Amino acid sequence: MTTKQLISEIKKKQSFLCIGLDVDLNKIPKHLLKEDDPIFAFNKAIIDATHHLCVAYKPNTAFYEAYGIKGWKALEKTIVYINENHPEIFTIADAKRGDIGNTSTMYAKAFFEDLSFDSVTVAPYMGKDSVEPFLAFKNKHTILLALTSNQGAFDFQTKEVHGKELYKQVLETSRTWENSENLMYVVGATKAEYLAEIRDIIPDSFLLVPGVGAQGGNLQDVCKYGMNANIGLLINSSRGIIYASNDEDFALMAAQKSKELQEQMAEVLSKQSW
Amino acid sequence: MTTKQLISEIKKKQSFLCIGLDVDLNKIPKHLLKEDDPIFAFNKAIIDATHHLCVAYKPNTAFYEAYGIKGWKALEKTIVYINENHPEIFTIADAKRGDIGNTSTMYAKAFFEDLSFDSVTVAPYMGKDSVEPFLAFKNKHTILLALTSNQGAFDFQTKEVHGKELYKQVLETSRTWENSENLMYVVGATKAEYLAEIRDIIPDSFLLVPGVGAQGGNLQDVCKYGMNANIGLLINSSRGIIYASNDEDFALMAAQKSKELQEQMAEVLSKQSW
Repeated sequence: MTTKQLISEIKKKQSFLCIGLDVDLNKIPKHLLKEDDPIFAFNKAIIDATHHLCVAYKPNTAFYEAYGIKGWKALEKTIVYINENHPEIFTIADAKRGDIGNTSTMYAKAFFEDLSFDSVTVAPYMGKDSVEPFLAFKNKHTILLALTSNQGAFDFQTKEVHGKELYKQVLETSRTWENSENLMYVVGATKAEYLAEIRDIIPDSFLLVPGVGAQGGNLQDVCKYGMNANIGLLINSSRGIIYASNDEDFALMAAQKSKELQEQMAEVLSKQSW
Repeated sequence: MTTKQLISEIKKKQSFLCIGLDVDLNKIPKHLLKEDDPIFAFNKAIIDATHHLCVAYKPNTAFYEAYGIKGWKALEKTIVYINENHPEIFTIADAKRGDIGNTSTMYAKAFFEDLSFDSVTVAPYMGKDSVEPFLAFKNKHTILLALTSNQGAFDFQTKEVHGKELYKQVLETSRTWENSENLMYVVGATKAEYLAEIRDIIPDSFLLVPGVGAQGGNLQDVCKYGMNANIGLLINSSRGIIYASNDEDFALMAAQKSKELQEQMAEVLSKQSW
């Protein structure tokens, strides 16, 4: 999917919501455990109930890997289901990969070719040659970790490197890499005030913002500081939506929570002139 | 496996060789492609031929993920085969994972419980709460990326943070984390001279050293600067061993290359007093 198509979908749906499909068998409704593939059954129900309210789905691969082969099958079925039924939806493999060059190419093939995701999250620690193999794929997007929403973000990301925080160095340096137009960035919502400075460095890029809701971020603040002329935001919610209920009404409640966020987003969008 | 058991194996086998099982179907001998599971067939032959010469196997997960479900089945069969036939061998899932707390727990379960690896490589960018969930597993080891062997290591890892290189900050900070005795570190061999300074910060930890051979590192230098009183080194070779030949004699040639390295290691060990 091109960035232009993503922007067009956001305008059409009046939503820049991304739903995180982080399925934990201990948290899903008990009645689903009787299904052949409870993970896929859960995802399918969530997707069926919410696809008109969001523009992106983001399965975190950890939740699938934890269940071994069964988990990978469920991940594969989920991405196939989205791509076949809702090809207009942007898909993110939240995998946080990164390795030396030839190995990163294998990861890129895994997510862009074998599983046909539109994008994958990548960690920056190993530098340019660990990220460029992902960037080489046309109309695919590499979402680089910049400033994450967890407490550990303060261990290294916000430390000063030559007078500038490490995450800012990551933003600046990554702009010089080949095919950097295929970059997006993970920026945690718990630090909305940082977004203005981030926008100074990368005015045009899309930001994937986790941590609105459960992790304490505020939607209005994120939009105020993070939005650009092309919207430039995907706001993720995982637990707040998919575990809104753990009873038989879970999909309905997920849709309701999604609708609440979508309406807030529509309101923000209505105040802008596109 | 405990660190004590690993040290005991190193002394018994007179080897601290780790073999990287990075299987690329474009590089393995053509006759194996007829097999039901060419990846596993290749690994099994390499393991059968080399298990007495090495103390660790390290499959890089990227090479398995690139082949989807089939790849994950091959990874699962490989780790089961090693654990059943050679339980004395230390196993490393070279996965370079790392995520927020509850998600890292899922990754830890995937590699330590579902797949029963002894250790997993983890990226430090997201800090303490992204690594501690791995450290919580008893007799399992978390191998943190410190200084990698690729060119991109100079993008961020060697940049100065408050007057000290980032990778040194990672080493120092990680020592303060809970259960830090379960930490090992990835340190690239292409910078053997850095090892002396690294040993000042983490005198007791095991180092996993990639980049000897194919990537230009020198075994003698690595041992000179990196060895400690408990040996403290695992030296990895992947392509140099497993692709020593791409003909029917591939396993024999892999054994020969392993033997050459093992003999160099035995010589180094013979000069020390343990």
